[in-house]
Amino acid sequence: MSYGIPRGESKFEPRDPHWNDKVRSSFTKQGVMGLIGAALADIWPGGCEIHLPYRSDLSQQHGFFHAGVTSTVVDSAAGYAGFSLMAPNTSVLSVEFKINLLAPADGELLIATGEVVKPGRNLVITRGDAWVVKKGKATHCAMMQQTLMTMHDKPEAEKTK
Amino acid sequence: MSYGIPRGESKFEPRDPHWNDKVRSSFTKQGVMGLIGAALADIWPGGCEIHLPYRSDLSQQHGFFHAGVTSTVVDSAAGYAGFSLMAPNTSVLSVEFKINLLAPADGELLIATGEVVKPGRNLVITRGDAWVVKKGKATHCAMMQQTLMTMHDKPEAEKTK
Amino acid sequence: MSYGIPRGESKFEPRDPHWNDKVRSSFTKQGVMGLIGAALADIWPGGCEIHLPYRSDLSQQHGFFHAGVTSTVVDSAAGYAGFSLMAPNTSVLSVEFKINLLAPADGELLIATGEVVKPGRNLVITRGDAWVVKKGKATHCAMMQQTLMTMHDKPEAEKTK
Amino acid sequence: MSYGIPRGESKFEPRDPHWNDKVRSSFTKQGVMGLIGAALADIWPGGCEIHLPYRSDLSQQHGFFHAGVTSTVVDSAAGYAGFSLMAPNTSVLSVEFKINLLAPADGELLIATGEVVKPGRNLVITRGDAWVVKKGKATHCAMMQQTLMTMHDKPEAEKTK
Repeated sequence: MSYGIPRGESKFEPRDPHWNDKVRSSFTKQGVMGLIGAALADIWPGGCEIHLPYRSDLSQQHGFFHAGVTSTVVDSAAGYAGFSLMAPNTSVLSVEFKINLLAPADGELLIATGEVVKPGRNLVITRGDAWVVKKGKATHCAMMQQTLMTMHDKPEAEKTK
Repeated sequence: MSYGIPRGESKFEPRDPHWNDKVRSSFTKQGVMGLIGAALADIWPGGCEIHLPYRSDLSQQHGFFHAGVTSTVVDSAAGYAGFSLMAPNTSVLSVEFKINLLAPADGELLIATGEVVKPGRNLVITRGDAWVVKKGKATHCAMMQQTLMTMHDKPEAEKTK
Repeated sequence: MSYGIPRGESKFEPRDPHWNDKVRSSFTKQGVMGLIGAALADIWPGGCEIHLPYRSDLSQQHGFFHAGVTSTVVDSAAGYAGFSLMAPNTSVLSVEFKINLLAPADGELLIATGEVVKPGRNLVITRGDAWVVKKGKATHCAMMQQTLMTMHDKPEAEKTK
Repeated sequence: MSYGIPRGESKFEPRDPHWNDKVRSSFTKQGVMGLIGAALADIWPGGCEIHLPYRSDLSQQHGFFHAGVTSTVVDSAAGYAGFSLMAPNTSVLSVEFKINLLAPADGELLIATGEVVKPGRNLVITRGDAWVVKKGKATHCAMMQQTLMTMHDKPEAEKTK
């Protein structure tokens, strides 16, 4: 784990033996991850970490990472944490999330983590966090609670658009 | 108002005579708005509307607008609704928001609106909504509650990064 | 509608012909409504209004209605708004909610309203609001977004505890 | 710490030497805590724990603790966690919170904990959690994110109502 950022223990058993492949495959289908330059840094059963290097075209009016950009990577990190525990032949949708912006996201790198709190069959509840790294020092800059829905019998198709 | 989307009445008096210019100037400084191709469609005292045409590089894994992208434009619309009512010589920060994704954001155009509910001196509470337009029909696809903080004696500077 | 508080139009068709009876019956089973002295003032398809007269044992440290008490009646109002639209042979659970406290809840009467925004088969998304009435004047004091889950094939039983 | 419930470390320095007394004094002024039978179990700099034994008049329609009651004690626990770190001559208000109900609150005792995540001068961001204890086993049943505002130069007065 980089920069001393805490990570929850892997305490969950995946329901799908192909959890790792399906998460990585889904990530590559998220067009917006390519647009902003985000990378899937790590994935484990019930957890995920995404890295996003700073660019000026990710900024809000003060030049920091935009709150919406922070939300985008934390929503994805927490969503993939949840997806890693879902059964085969399902897909995942975000129902809702709430994010607190704890500090200005001023730095060279944004690290988003997500972890499952409650892996229900239909609803999965997660936590997400973001740290911004400036000159090697990580500052906790966002905190999220998220609700995911499992879409049963709807595996991710090839994208048609 | 386009596509029959409801708009709250303009019931607020701006504190800053230059409210319109300062919002438009701030919008152009948000690098991420340029990156995703969002346009400031309208601004009025206590309200704002942003338009975002669909592109595949704004998508999640099913090809719809990514929840984080939707959050980005609704957060900005609601944030500028709030900023339009703030006093001169201030700037605005998002403290937190919560968004419900009501329907898949499947369409050609995303319309985000924000309006002020409570324009406090320090904290401003807003509502935001998003509609996705497909073949001319608008569907309500997201709903937000947001808290903004007024940064007193900190007008927006020229961006240095 | 009392005190000029806005109410959404009844635009929904109930799935259960006994929607009115089942909501009223469920309300009487909520022990906490009796404890705090809340009354079901009105119910319509997709909406609900609850009244709560002030008592000093409902207060926080300044003597106003406690934020948790406000949450309790808004959560119930929004929950029953959702329950009114659910199919027969189901029951309702709150998945999550988020509430903004807009003004101190200082007054003689708290009025909570809830209305359905999105009546999905499994998940129902609602809005809730609270007004506090002081000397006949109603002030908007809270605003909620809530997610409900329909429990299929689990009608409300007689309470056993 | 009872029932194996995790507690964050005390990593904060209180600004007010009388932090313990002022929290305990404020708790006794919350009329609703007496009404529902809640007890301030523990308080430390940046953290708080409240206990609430089950009674049928705290229930929702299934006989479990009502989500609003759970919210009430978690809101207070997190609020007092924040208040413990605030400067002398201030008081505290809840700006907003969001709560996920993770499991039915079915048990004999509800334990609410709160801890400070970001102790800003004006805004304090907290986390709250609730566990329900049934036959000696604690289940994590709720999770909260909360924003508090420090009211400067407004110490808590004697209650006049």
